Amino acid sequence: MSIRVGIVGVSGYGGGEVLRLCASHPSFEMVYVAGESSAGSRLVEKFPGLNKKLGDLVIEKWDPTALPKLDLLFASLPTGQSREPLAKVPASVKIVDIGGDHRYVDGWTYGLADVWPEEIKKATRVANPGCYPSAALAAIAPLLHAGLVEPHPPMMIDAKSGVSGAGRGGGDSKFGFAECNEDVVAYGLLKHPHLAEIAATVKRLQPASETRIAFTPHLIPMTRGILATCYLCPKEGADLTTEKCLQVAREFYKDRPFVRVTDRPPHTKWATGSNLVFVSYAAAGRAPIIALGAIDNLGKGAAGQAVQNANLMTGQPEDAGLCAAPMWP
Amino acid sequence: MSIRVGIVGVSGYGGGEVLRLCASHPSFEMVYVAGESSAGSRLVEKFPGLNKKLGDLVIEKWDPTALPKLDLLFASLPTGQSREPLAKVPASVKIVDIGGDHRYVDGWTYGLADVWPEEIKKATRVANPGCYPSAALAAIAPLLHAGLVEPHPPMMIDAKSGVSGAGRGGGDSKFGFAECNEDVVAYGLLKHPHLAEIAATVKRLQPASETRIAFTPHLIPMTRGILATCYLCPKEGADLTTEKCLQVAREFYKDRPFVRVTDRPPHTKWATGSNLVFVSYAAAGRAPIIALGAIDNLGKGAAGQAVQNANLMTGQPEDAGLCAAPMWP
Amino acid sequence: MSIRVGIVGVSGYGGGEVLRLCASHPSFEMVYVAGESSAGSRLVEKFPGLNKKLGDLVIEKWDPTALPKLDLLFASLPTGQSREPLAKVPASVKIVDIGGDHRYVDGWTYGLADVWPEEIKKATRVANPGCYPSAALAAIAPLLHAGLVEPHPPMMIDAKSGVSGAGRGGGDSKFGFAECNEDVVAYGLLKHPHLAEIAATVKRLQPASETRIAFTPHLIPMTRGILATCYLCPKEGADLTTEKCLQVAREFYKDRPFVRVTDRPPHTKWATGSNLVFVSYAAAGRAPIIALGAIDNLGKGAAGQAVQNANLMTGQPEDAGLCAAPMWP
Amino acid sequence: MSIRVGIVGVSGYGGGEVLRLCASHPSFEMVYVAGESSAGSRLVEKFPGLNKKLGDLVIEKWDPTALPKLDLLFASLPTGQSREPLAKVPASVKIVDIGGDHRYVDGWTYGLADVWPEEIKKATRVANPGCYPSAALAAIAPLLHAGLVEPHPPMMIDAKSGVSGAGRGGGDSKFGFAECNEDVVAYGLLKHPHLAEIAATVKRLQPASETRIAFTPHLIPMTRGILATCYLCPKEGADLTTEKCLQVAREFYKDRPFVRVTDRPPHTKWATGSNLVFVSYAAAGRAPIIALGAIDNLGKGAAGQAVQNANLMTGQPEDAGLCAAPMWP
Repeated sequence: MSIRVGIVGVSGYGGGEVLRLCASHPSFEMVYVAGESSAGSRLVEKFPGLNKKLGDLVIEKWDPTALPKLDLLFASLPTGQSREPLAKVPASVKIVDIGGDHRYVDGWTYGLADVWPEEIKKATRVANPGCYPSAALAAIAPLLHAGLVEPHPPMMIDAKSGVSGAGRGGGDSKFGFAECNEDVVAYGLLKHPHLAEIAATVKRLQPASETRIAFTPHLIPMTRGILATCYLCPKEGADLTTEKCLQVAREFYKDRPFVRVTDRPPHTKWATGSNLVFVSYAAAGRAPIIALGAIDNLGKGAAGQAVQNANLMTGQPEDAGLCAAPMWP
Repeated sequence: MSIRVGIVGVSGYGGGEVLRLCASHPSFEMVYVAGESSAGSRLVEKFPGLNKKLGDLVIEKWDPTALPKLDLLFASLPTGQSREPLAKVPASVKIVDIGGDHRYVDGWTYGLADVWPEEIKKATRVANPGCYPSAALAAIAPLLHAGLVEPHPPMMIDAKSGVSGAGRGGGDSKFGFAECNEDVVAYGLLKHPHLAEIAATVKRLQPASETRIAFTPHLIPMTRGILATCYLCPKEGADLTTEKCLQVAREFYKDRPFVRVTDRPPHTKWATGSNLVFVSYAAAGRAPIIALGAIDNLGKGAAGQAVQNANLMTGQPEDAGLCAAPMWP
Repeated sequence: MSIRVGIVGVSGYGGGEVLRLCASHPSFEMVYVAGESSAGSRLVEKFPGLNKKLGDLVIEKWDPTALPKLDLLFASLPTGQSREPLAKVPASVKIVDIGGDHRYVDGWTYGLADVWPEEIKKATRVANPGCYPSAALAAIAPLLHAGLVEPHPPMMIDAKSGVSGAGRGGGDSKFGFAECNEDVVAYGLLKHPHLAEIAATVKRLQPASETRIAFTPHLIPMTRGILATCYLCPKEGADLTTEKCLQVAREFYKDRPFVRVTDRPPHTKWATGSNLVFVSYAAAGRAPIIALGAIDNLGKGAAGQAVQNANLMTGQPEDAGLCAAPMWP
Repeated sequence: MSIRVGIVGVSGYGGGEVLRLCASHPSFEMVYVAGESSAGSRLVEKFPGLNKKLGDLVIEKWDPTALPKLDLLFASLPTGQSREPLAKVPASVKIVDIGGDHRYVDGWTYGLADVWPEEIKKATRVANPGCYPSAALAAIAPLLHAGLVEPHPPMMIDAKSGVSGAGRGGGDSKFGFAECNEDVVAYGLLKHPHLAEIAATVKRLQPASETRIAFTPHLIPMTRGILATCYLCPKEGADLTTEKCLQVAREFYKDRPFVRVTDRPPHTKWATGSNLVFVSYAAAGRAPIIALGAIDNLGKGAAGQAVQNANLMTGQPEDAGLCAAPMWP
């Protein structure tokens, strides 16, 4: 039986990717798409490659009090614009919030789907993790869980993101092609909002941790993809090797369908268009452990994980609509 | 019932894309993958995002006399390397040759799937069109068919291709990132092999045509995509308008699932990862008609059309395995 | 003796490139820089790599009635914003207008510096050619001048530009990295404003010409560069060859310092950062002549030619400040 | 009086950039260019934008025993190919080795030109620093010199490089456009040769240091540029702030012409085509210090610093030939 699905924020990059994935989903029926500036357009005007049935859907003006009958709503709104309207959505409608407003907020489950799927199965309100945390936590979770990381020294997370992570808003020449191309820059030093989200999750994975974390996001000249390069201090006496880290991760992710543990450093391109995450490691004795996580920021970093969460919440196969192989090259 | 499928040249860009599409195909069962330099590897080593079942397939040394039981073989070999080996493939195995060796060759059907599907349904040997002809012919076929183009003056086809069209061979710094990036160049002036293929097809679509064609391919700094900008002389008295061209194309492609006629100039990005082709036009009286065709060179320009041809040849729904919406952005 | 120079529109891409070139000019002394939104900033805030002396200049609010003592003013303002203010600039100040408002306007000299330098030497008001005309006209001028082109049939100009040509304005996600990257699109079909400018110049080069021109600009994913691919009908009986075209061009541009006639298709990257233009040709009997022009759109297509014009107007060596070799790769 | 200069390895990216810079150098006269595969060509065939005089130089077969009269030789050879031949160059010819063979080798001076210019002035054999060390050391040297960094905990250097750093060799599809584009990957984990070079220099700057360094280079989809993001542990009681780090760096680099200390995170694009290095910092109490260094890998990371070293060695003004403003955008 089909599940009646809606998307608000459909014309942004995250919402559009949810739409794309739902278009191939065997049991999600798209019955409602909403936006702000794009309201009144048919979907095909924004997404010329959609099939005719979906393409003819008209984008509605977003109004949480005037929804059609829905089983599930994906919200992909700018940070700061979700709390109030989503509070008005009837309790019978399950919600996955792709934006940042409900992470580690009471009443919402943090949707780190590859790590805590059982909680998500029981939830009706799920906050999808941020794109950077999705890449970094996938790599470090197995090590923290296995107690291989010294809890006191700081942990460095150096992340590189494609420009679609900045959203479709545009309006600023700093995200323009001419300026992003042939450039790399760090931003949000010591104060990016994803830092708190990472810290809260690290604390949960390793409660003894002091969670001193330096997180530095970078903008690099590509459209999609995030690579998180994480530097962790090995626990005294752990006598770590690369192989040991790989084994720990393989065990941790056993039976999880979207995580691939690889013995060479992963390329973000391996994940393009998919919900996959690739993790790998390098370690040698007392040297810092290097933990790598590679994703598509619009896949595992946004829409892919959102659909995975929706599958878990609605009792669908976890990989429904998410089986397509990544695009390469 | 499943159709037993093989791919030779699987580790190239075209072969890899066939593999990706077949991985989501409801009735194609991949039973044979072959290559040269990659023989002996498991597929997952070349394509780390494949599902486990496909990923574990081992790439065989290509030998047309030692095939397993197959219903269909995709060949994606460098030009000049298909004729001899494919002649040895048993007649019972249907073949789609993605390479250039069998176009307009006796015994082979030219697989321009959006124009002549009925012929292809009856064929067992299909030569997949070249990437540039696929983009250009999609745009000009409706006009030629409707007799709107003056047959004598030359026709100009100016095409822009992503670098994946040069194949994976590498070996030449001219296809290296550092040199292709921030560059555009024309090549193959007056002598690219696709010129003859376009001319032969134009002749078939408009037998009176003199088919004086100038075809200029260009390499532009992107991975996937071809845009063909075609300049045609309107027939005396045709009194053409943009709208008239659009109508003619809509009628010509009525019920064809992969062609989208759009009233604004198409972006190649609209087609990324899909088998779609977007066509559009501008015309005003005696001015040259501008006919535009936009594709993914590895989709409609190679693997997508190959799978479409295979569907037609094997009695599958024409869009089996080809329904996924394009990736955007 | 130094020449006192000013730039209005200094924080845009064109104005910034004039600034960069003037920074290395042996006799231009920058005494005035002006803008709108950037007024009040020091130059170093916008251009962090400038030397200290230039970097400390403060951007003034643009007011043509309150200029310091100037010998020469470069204007790089959005189209439509030059006419009124530049009319108020004292006659003693020479002007090069890089914007589009004064091309083929009474009292202004069209600054096609490689073709008509003598006129420019006598001028005090010069309209710098547009970026597309600069690339296309460089390639076709020698053929028109030599009478090798049939005047009646249409001429097709298919041009490919980097995104910096759209200016710094930003504000539109269609020039954002995520959407321009991995994409090519045609725009302004049959109505781009540069069409009239090309037509007027063609008329001057070959008065008998009917100047039916189809001009199609394209946006491709690079920051700098324009390649114009031009298709011309050879004059009856001209018996053209590639070599003949090359000879005609070499003769036409003999002693012109910035034009390079090459026997292979030029790469736009050959010109990056410079005022060079590369032209080449392919011709064979009655087939359309293919004429290629490759430039840096901010060099020969804007700031480079502007400085060349300024040199001609002020009696400096034509290549003063323009001798640096292009950047490669 | 002019200085007679030669380049061996002129057709590679590093050698070509030395050539470009020397073309604008007021006192370097290029009298010898040599290569392997390119021997016999005129320079203009490889570098079509060179001026006529330089362009007509013929590339010689590299033979250290058959040099013309030279004052200075730039060597830009693949690692492993410098030691033997450069040992045969007459002592009267000063050498700057851009390759990796002579760093921290007896008889050769390490050419970290912004830090130790006085030593270089006296040297006749200078080993140019590697591209990654050039970016990273510029950022961390002032902090180490001021004793602000705890010597025991590990130091993390996470560096992002454009693809030209891999050299022109090509031959591998992994540096091809289609695969590098839309991708980022880490490589050389725990074993890149630049790690030892960084460690040796850190040891010299802070002898007490244990120099446990994790260095992770990344390949990102751009042609030029390196950003090094360095994570350092602040010394107990140092009570660090961002402003304190900036002050220390401004003092350390006072009067050094190519280092710019900026209060916002630097873009690599700010340095494109120049010998500049931009450094910035973020610090807050006990949190790891983030030290950023941004360069053009072919400028400060190779040819720019090589010319700077040559200027120091030959008594020229340090910035001769290096004054041009960077290219932007």
